Amino acid sequence: MTASVHQLHPDRAPTLEPLIALTAADMNAVNQVILARMQSEVPLIPELAGHLIAGGGKRMRPMLTCASAALCDYPGTRHHKLAAAVEFIHTATLLHDDVVDMSGMRRGKRTANIIWGNPASVLVGDFLFSRSFELMVEDGSLKVLKILSHASAVIAEGEVAQLTAQRQIATGEDTYLHIIEAKTAALFAAACRIAPVVAEAGEDAELALEAFGRNLGIAFQLVDDAIDYTSDEGTSGKSLGDDFREGKMTLPIILAYARGGEADRRFWKEAVSGDRVADDDLAHAIALLRSTDAIGDTLERARLYARRALDALAPFPSGKAKAALSEAVAFAVARAY
Amino acid sequence: MTASVHQLHPDRAPTLEPLIALTAADMNAVNQVILARMQSEVPLIPELAGHLIAGGGKRMRPMLTCASAALCDYPGTRHHKLAAAVEFIHTATLLHDDVVDMSGMRRGKRTANIIWGNPASVLVGDFLFSRSFELMVEDGSLKVLKILSHASAVIAEGEVAQLTAQRQIATGEDTYLHIIEAKTAALFAAACRIAPVVAEAGEDAELALEAFGRNLGIAFQLVDDAIDYTSDEGTSGKSLGDDFREGKMTLPIILAYARGGEADRRFWKEAVSGDRVADDDLAHAIALLRSTDAIGDTLERARLYARRALDALAPFPSGKAKAALSEAVAFAVARAY
Repeated sequence: MTASVHQLHPDRAPTLEPLIALTAADMNAVNQVILARMQSEVPLIPELAGHLIAGGGKRMRPMLTCASAALCDYPGTRHHKLAAAVEFIHTATLLHDDVVDMSGMRRGKRTANIIWGNPASVLVGDFLFSRSFELMVEDGSLKVLKILSHASAVIAEGEVAQLTAQRQIATGEDTYLHIIEAKTAALFAAACRIAPVVAEAGEDAELALEAFGRNLGIAFQLVDDAIDYTSDEGTSGKSLGDDFREGKMTLPIILAYARGGEADRRFWKEAVSGDRVADDDLAHAIALLRSTDAIGDTLERARLYARRALDALAPFPSGKAKAALSEAVAFAVARAY
Repeated sequence: MTASVHQLHPDRAPTLEPLIALTAADMNAVNQVILARMQSEVPLIPELAGHLIAGGGKRMRPMLTCASAALCDYPGTRHHKLAAAVEFIHTATLLHDDVVDMSGMRRGKRTANIIWGNPASVLVGDFLFSRSFELMVEDGSLKVLKILSHASAVIAEGEVAQLTAQRQIATGEDTYLHIIEAKTAALFAAACRIAPVVAEAGEDAELALEAFGRNLGIAFQLVDDAIDYTSDEGTSGKSLGDDFREGKMTLPIILAYARGGEADRRFWKEAVSGDRVADDDLAHAIALLRSTDAIGDTLERARLYARRALDALAPFPSGKAKAALSEAVAFAVARAY
């Protein structure tokens, strides 16, 4: 089903393995920076940060920084510190997200806010965020600082916009796209773009990798939002229907609501308002999402953005880095199957 | 009673008026930056940020940046953006603090987390924090970025350390001082230090103003922690005994506990554990703080740090800026009377 995006190996499902292999040595160095720089004389900080950082995340964003550096034939090591900074921003965002969403599970583990409480999650997130800027300042590129400080502000705006749209049945696809572009794709884009900056690969390479990251990020979030209605905790580490119970206006609901008859629309209004949180309600929601093809079309949109991400790589020479990034795109949209 | 610190005008109480007058034109420009840069296409952001920013804060920190610039005879305007960045960091910290402390009142108004909820306060805090870095990046001084990113990390560490010490009766004066130096004095110090950086006034001026800000910040927080047991909502905008009910180990309690007999110590242990939150308990606590002179000695410590702050100004030439900063120090320690 992902054939329209990527057909490197039509006989097997795409994986992250080529990306992981390509960036293994780099990521070893990045992980050392991460571990060294999440330390603090206040023991709760490494304890809490380590729970999430060591807790089975894929490290997608720093891997993208490293693979982008490889794509630009960057021979140096400056991207290690910057990739760690990107991961710190992401980790800070996750810690705050879990407080905002009152989440209980992430990556199959209890969330930090459940174990240590909301205050600790908020403050350790602030610490990691500050530390990420310290890492960037140590690197010393004002251009990188500009890209990542802007991305951070956009992420926060996207999170507030998402909060504003929560439980608002009138939220449309444009608003939704705008939100995920801000809350998710902005950091993917920045993670990719800083590599050609340190590699001094030029404006064209920067814009191409920015577009690659942004479109991959959008595809990634679209699939995530579909998975929320198709997976169970065992495979995704999240609880099935978390978004549903939180009244989050993701694309599956937006499409199903737009396509629904009067009774269906009444159901979605009640569900988004928080009046239908039983298991039966979730089962009914999933049935409606299937009958309106809302999940399938969300994934179709994801494949469109994945296609754009691949197109953005066109100017770069073929090789291991391009192949690894291409297969990562295919993997991102194949996760839902 | 502040005679030991400052005796410019022994016939009247010190005020912030000279500082306000000195920085009026600058602060007009700073306020314009603040208002312009807290805007966002997401309406909740300026709404929530504006509630706190327009909500009667003294703007102590950006005024200190402006007065420090005047002390260094800085003729430019770069400090306007940077003073706004400092205020954004402070505002972000306040928004997160109110979530952490579950506060209901600040500056005599309902807190943002009460009006808009914790999630919005966390995320708008993140936005302001990111925006503050964008402002610094626009200014373009890596030295300023280093000072403020480091201060931000130290603030977060101080807040986590405070959280760890909460409800821990064994917390001593050293730990307390370390916490307030991090959570409060680090930003005062950074706010002052960045002015000689943009003024290119030299390392000596930087270190002197850093020491000035740090000692003023410690004095300021010591007085704040005393006021928590002496004022009422009408005069401070805070609720009397907030720290008491939250089990915060501030110096008044640390001193009273150390000086108390067996029954008093038992009372403090129960109080700090959260088992004595009635109005009678607070009244008893205040009586103990008075009988052990814990409030008076907290203020005595504040005067010591105020003295150090004034000493740090010694190398600078006399004039309006030095006089205004000196009287601000005297005001900081006179607030409690």
